[in-house]
Amino acid sequence: MPHVNLVSTYPGITGLLQDYPESGAPIRDLTQFLLRGPNTLTEGERELIASVVCVGNECQFCSNAHVVTAARYVGSVEAVHNVLQNPFGGQVDDRIAHLLRISAAVRTGGIVPDDMVEDARKAGATDVELHDTVLIAALFSLYNRYVDGLATDLPQDSSYYDALADRLTTTGYASPGQQHATH
Amino acid sequence: MPHVNLVSTYPGITGLLQDYPESGAPIRDLTQFLLRGPNTLTEGERELIASVVCVGNECQFCSNAHVVTAARYVGSVEAVHNVLQNPFGGQVDDRIAHLLRISAAVRTGGIVPDDMVEDARKAGATDVELHDTVLIAALFSLYNRYVDGLATDLPQDSSYYDALADRLTTTGYASPGQQHATH
Repeated sequence: MPHVNLVSTYPGITGLLQDYPESGAPIRDLTQFLLRGPNTLTEGERELIASVVCVGNECQFCSNAHVVTAARYVGSVEAVHNVLQNPFGGQVDDRIAHLLRISAAVRTGGIVPDDMVEDARKAGATDVELHDTVLIAALFSLYNRYVDGLATDLPQDSSYYDALADRLTTTGYASPGQQHATH
Repeated sequence: MPHVNLVSTYPGITGLLQDYPESGAPIRDLTQFLLRGPNTLTEGERELIASVVCVGNECQFCSNAHVVTAARYVGSVEAVHNVLQNPFGGQVDDRIAHLLRISAAVRTGGIVPDDMVEDARKAGATDVELHDTVLIAALFSLYNRYVDGLATDLPQDSSYYDALADRLTTTGYASPGQQHATH
């Protein structure tokens, strides 16, 4: 049972964004811009950054949501977990592997070491890609704490995550008024 | 030197929000609503929640910014540090002390224990106060990672934080176009 009463019956972040729309709107806008806006990082690569943080933080709702969503781009949930466990295993190019390494460092907090950034640059990462990687990882550090800090419910059925991935890979993170909600 | 080139010469978060306005705008909007919007928590109490997270995460820019800002409401920087070190020491009422304890738990991550929430409720905390406490603590978990993840500069002079506190206690967190910037 969540720590606060929610009118919405939606699990995880969905109920919070719906019941608290004044904070929900800028959170959705920021996420839509960072994860679905024009970017030299693909949507799938940005979902992998999100997944590094959610899985590392053991946020069950967020991990399932973003691993299942990343899987739509990467091929399978197993493939996503393989990338997260071994970013330099050849499934993604080295530039992305270095950005995933930076994402993991942002998750734990503190100043990201110079050499991590230098390595990513040598592999081709740009300033904007470095910026967006850090901010996406920071954003999911917020999400995980919001979702678990209030002990939100998990979905009753794991098919929920598939329906969520349907939405996140099509209409994206925009607020319900701006999209055709699937749930 | 920051990990990414910035046109802005402003230190800490300020340069990032200015150079990356498309992500900066929703971050400012969310912060303005949560920290300065209508609320049964005072602006000072909300700055204490921010300070718990920034100080706990040892984010030097953010800690100075929010401790100095909280001090405008609480009386002095020393008084802020006293509250953070001993929330139940009588400087703030028990309801706020319990919310600061929850903020510290959100900072470290994971599911906030039921008993912490129950204790806060018994001391008078409402659903919205619990929600806002968790989300403010989550937001500053984002800020600290954004600021330190990109190794942003510190101000050259500590008077910067006083000028920043002047702004944050008057025009607040709104974007520069919506305020009279003091720097």
